[in-house]
Amino acid sequence: MSHSHPELGTPPELPAGGLRVTPLGGLGEVGRNMTVFEYDGRLLIVDCGVLFPDEHHPGVDLILPDFTPIRGRLDDVEALVLTHGHEDHIGATPYLLREREDIPLVGSELTLALLGGKLREHRLKQPAYHKVAEGDRISFGPFDLEFVAVNHSIPDALAVAIRTGAGLVLHTGDFKMDQLPLDGRITDLRAFARLGEEGVDLFLTDSTNAEVPGFTTAEKKITPVLDQVFREADQRIIVACFASHVHRVQQILDTAVAHDRKVAFVGRSMVRNMGVARDLGYLTIPPGVMVEAKELADLPPERQVLISTGSQGEPMSALARIANRSHNFVHLESGDTVVLASSLIPGNENAVYRVINGLSRWGARVVHKGNALVHVSGHASAGELLYCYNIVRPRNVLPVHGEIRHMLANGALAQQVGVENVVYAEDGVVVDLVEGHASVTGKVDVGYVFVDGQSIGDVTEAELKDRRILGEEGFISVIVVVDSVAGKVSAGPEIHARGHAWRDEDFEAIKQPIVDAVNGLLAEGTDDTYQMQQAVRRTIGRWVSGTHRRRPMIIPVVVEA
Amino acid sequence: MSHSHPELGTPPELPAGGLRVTPLGGLGEVGRNMTVFEYDGRLLIVDCGVLFPDEHHPGVDLILPDFTPIRGRLDDVEALVLTHGHEDHIGATPYLLREREDIPLVGSELTLALLGGKLREHRLKQPAYHKVAEGDRISFGPFDLEFVAVNHSIPDALAVAIRTGAGLVLHTGDFKMDQLPLDGRITDLRAFARLGEEGVDLFLTDSTNAEVPGFTTAEKKITPVLDQVFREADQRIIVACFASHVHRVQQILDTAVAHDRKVAFVGRSMVRNMGVARDLGYLTIPPGVMVEAKELADLPPERQVLISTGSQGEPMSALARIANRSHNFVHLESGDTVVLASSLIPGNENAVYRVINGLSRWGARVVHKGNALVHVSGHASAGELLYCYNIVRPRNVLPVHGEIRHMLANGALAQQVGVENVVYAEDGVVVDLVEGHASVTGKVDVGYVFVDGQSIGDVTEAELKDRRILGEEGFISVIVVVDSVAGKVSAGPEIHARGHAWRDEDFEAIKQPIVDAVNGLLAEGTDDTYQMQQAVRRTIGRWVSGTHRRRPMIIPVVVEA
Repeated sequence: MSHSHPELGTPPELPAGGLRVTPLGGLGEVGRNMTVFEYDGRLLIVDCGVLFPDEHHPGVDLILPDFTPIRGRLDDVEALVLTHGHEDHIGATPYLLREREDIPLVGSELTLALLGGKLREHRLKQPAYHKVAEGDRISFGPFDLEFVAVNHSIPDALAVAIRTGAGLVLHTGDFKMDQLPLDGRITDLRAFARLGEEGVDLFLTDSTNAEVPGFTTAEKKITPVLDQVFREADQRIIVACFASHVHRVQQILDTAVAHDRKVAFVGRSMVRNMGVARDLGYLTIPPGVMVEAKELADLPPERQVLISTGSQGEPMSALARIANRSHNFVHLESGDTVVLASSLIPGNENAVYRVINGLSRWGARVVHKGNALVHVSGHASAGELLYCYNIVRPRNVLPVHGEIRHMLANGALAQQVGVENVVYAEDGVVVDLVEGHASVTGKVDVGYVFVDGQSIGDVTEAELKDRRILGEEGFISVIVVVDSVAGKVSAGPEIHARGHAWRDEDFEAIKQPIVDAVNGLLAEGTDDTYQMQQAVRRTIGRWVSGTHRRRPMIIPVVVEA
Repeated sequence: MSHSHPELGTPPELPAGGLRVTPLGGLGEVGRNMTVFEYDGRLLIVDCGVLFPDEHHPGVDLILPDFTPIRGRLDDVEALVLTHGHEDHIGATPYLLREREDIPLVGSELTLALLGGKLREHRLKQPAYHKVAEGDRISFGPFDLEFVAVNHSIPDALAVAIRTGAGLVLHTGDFKMDQLPLDGRITDLRAFARLGEEGVDLFLTDSTNAEVPGFTTAEKKITPVLDQVFREADQRIIVACFASHVHRVQQILDTAVAHDRKVAFVGRSMVRNMGVARDLGYLTIPPGVMVEAKELADLPPERQVLISTGSQGEPMSALARIANRSHNFVHLESGDTVVLASSLIPGNENAVYRVINGLSRWGARVVHKGNALVHVSGHASAGELLYCYNIVRPRNVLPVHGEIRHMLANGALAQQVGVENVVYAEDGVVVDLVEGHASVTGKVDVGYVFVDGQSIGDVTEAELKDRRILGEEGFISVIVVVDSVAGKVSAGPEIHARGHAWRDEDFEAIKQPIVDAVNGLLAEGTDDTYQMQQAVRRTIGRWVSGTHRRRPMIIPVVVEA
């Protein structure tokens, strides 16, 4: 069975009483999660996140889900449900609200608080918030929603049960099943069981860790490891972690107190998010432990702890600057301890190891997930997913949130415990739930939407292809001025190249052939600038490929003057 | 203690009877291994490999060690010892021989055979080969060499003991201590012990896996896993692995025979290397098992095995083309099995997962080191290194082959078992062994040498910086033609931009300000083209940064005509 659905066309009209599921992001990739549910002509959206670009998207700031399939129907949207406050679930919301600003926003307290900061940055001032908590039921049009507590690497995450005339859908959001969470808020398997008893017609489940055997280690298991690291450190300690990982930060704070150290936050997002988490009571700051980052330096090194961003090796982050010894006021000393209490997102390896090597070079001890248990994942591993499927016993499963390999592994788990119908879909592939059976019925066109400086969606694959060529091969521009009255080249060629070590004299040999090529066309009576430019392109292109074995971008310019 | 040695200058003159070690590559990075030993004015080189560029080196084909510190002394080189046939140990040899072609090349049979193919490609025809085997002793000038068998992920690897008046040096090359190797050729710990009894003054040891706890699993343990994969497959099987991993290929061949399948090699380097290995007896091809790749397709799918390159996700490789269904004659079918029997080199994750997702999308079952034991490393883990240090009991240790983090982990292991002096050095940092004590005495300048098309060493960090800017930000070129007689702009500005979605009309607003800026200078009597270009740059630069929040490369051209 092939999962690429190359044969699919536009889906047929949705039968009355059917529910349509159209993933606009997050199915086939890790990020920009967004799923649209349609019932009786009305739409419900779950999540609206961003994807962070990799080396295939040079210069791009963010990648958004493609709103095209719903753009003409934004007035049909009853609500946007946000399952938790991570960027890959909420980050694209401001861009959706630019298209219709009064879409009702539904989420937990912390989720909406983190979203609020983001919307204010985008100057969206009057969002229509609907704060919900686990156990709440609320209806938007034909969608009757019930929220269920789930445990994840950020507090206050929710799964959502969606009841319509087509049946009961359960969407886990991102989740895991830590049985000993720091805040005691476990994934509510009793609610999952109750929904299962009622009969879950379609179960959308987080695939991220479906390839990982066994069970995700409890967050709490990190405390004794941190404790040991703190005990062994006799100078400053710097801990880098994700700026939204409230429970990780809580453990670091508590460990600092136990070892009589003071703590400062470093990095804009860390300071901002932990402020929000503290104000709402999700982070408990022990009295007297926090100091301002600049004041921390006045304490003896053995009393200092910095909690910093930059755990993914981001070149402009606080940690990278510390590793380069280019940070404003944090000067790394030989003997300092640095903990990277974070995952290593695929693609970031080189950047992260560059930071680790930089820190090591100055004599710091570097503790990371490769040599100590200082990170656990936020997603359910295979063993947890099996529990989940056995408790819910859904009729149909649609694996979500992950690359193809993750979704296939997730679906295989569902099948192992007896789920009869697993449906695989990537972004844009339409799944209809009709009379209790889910199936792929069509495909809508969706693509990557690039945020690039001030532009949203203007930069396309064509521009990225140009960037890749420029980035690998550089360019040569050739300027020829033509006197159209005299019918010959009057100045130039001026040749400019960047990205190569060619000197001006390297081009001397090719200047006369370029002039000859253009003059030849002029002598034939041509006055078509495009033809002349093509002649210039051919002449220098052949020469650079023959002489230098490179294929830079060539920009021929013929100016009439 | 800081390991960056920022304070170091040129090393002092080497005391009589001392041995100087100058690493030109491989210390501080994984690749381009090359170490120079100097005694009594004469030089011995161990290894001369390449480093494969990562995303920080766009467009670069290869990175060489920097020969600058020995360039003026090539006539002092007694020999180049090649420990094994991997690219990161032999790949830069042709570039060194271009500078002095008769340097004696010392290595094992397979190493020299693989090197020979490379030198022929570079049209170096008369290399001075000295074939050696484990147990051999041979002198070059003051360097008395003894070779010791070591086990690695390529057959016929050697460690080298170097005796001079300064003492006994043992260099492991790349190695591990598989106690059950496929060819029975174990790392010769009896020789290590004998050398230890004699007294090893300086021990250079492979750091690659020093951070990995325990012991590297035996290569043989892969056979039952392959056997299981083959048993479960009822269609074609494609196995990708490194083109030099003779023992891995041997296991695949043997498993294919056991399951009555025929095998074809795909990929130029696979075909070439396995030909060499077979001719020399390192690969045993069971009779009748091999067929040509194009003929394989005529067999029923359940009798086909392809052994292919592309295990690192290289976009042009056979495997990547199979995953895209763009391969000439291998058409992937749903239900086929693909095995990536290979490591995942850091930095290649995205490329490899892209291939795995591509294969999965067509319905292939993909087996890789993340879900089955189909790969083991070629390097000694921490447990093996401890054995090694306890057997050799060296006076001084210099960890080699690895990033800083690997070398520090390796040195820490040596210290744990009582080695008193561990010396850390990166490329260019000079270590002298004088009267039995090794210490850092200075630093010589070494950099990256980029092979880029036909150019070697011409492309520098400056050109790469331009490429990075071009690749992320694109460029705008602005051409203004000036009539120097009339003293005003006579044509243009013509504005060309690439890497952005800007249209011609986007630039209309800025054309007049550019003309005004240039005419203003001309009116003041300026005839300095550079000044006019700077005015153009400022005018458009401010505009694009203000309007579009981007900072493309700006190429202002003012032509007088």
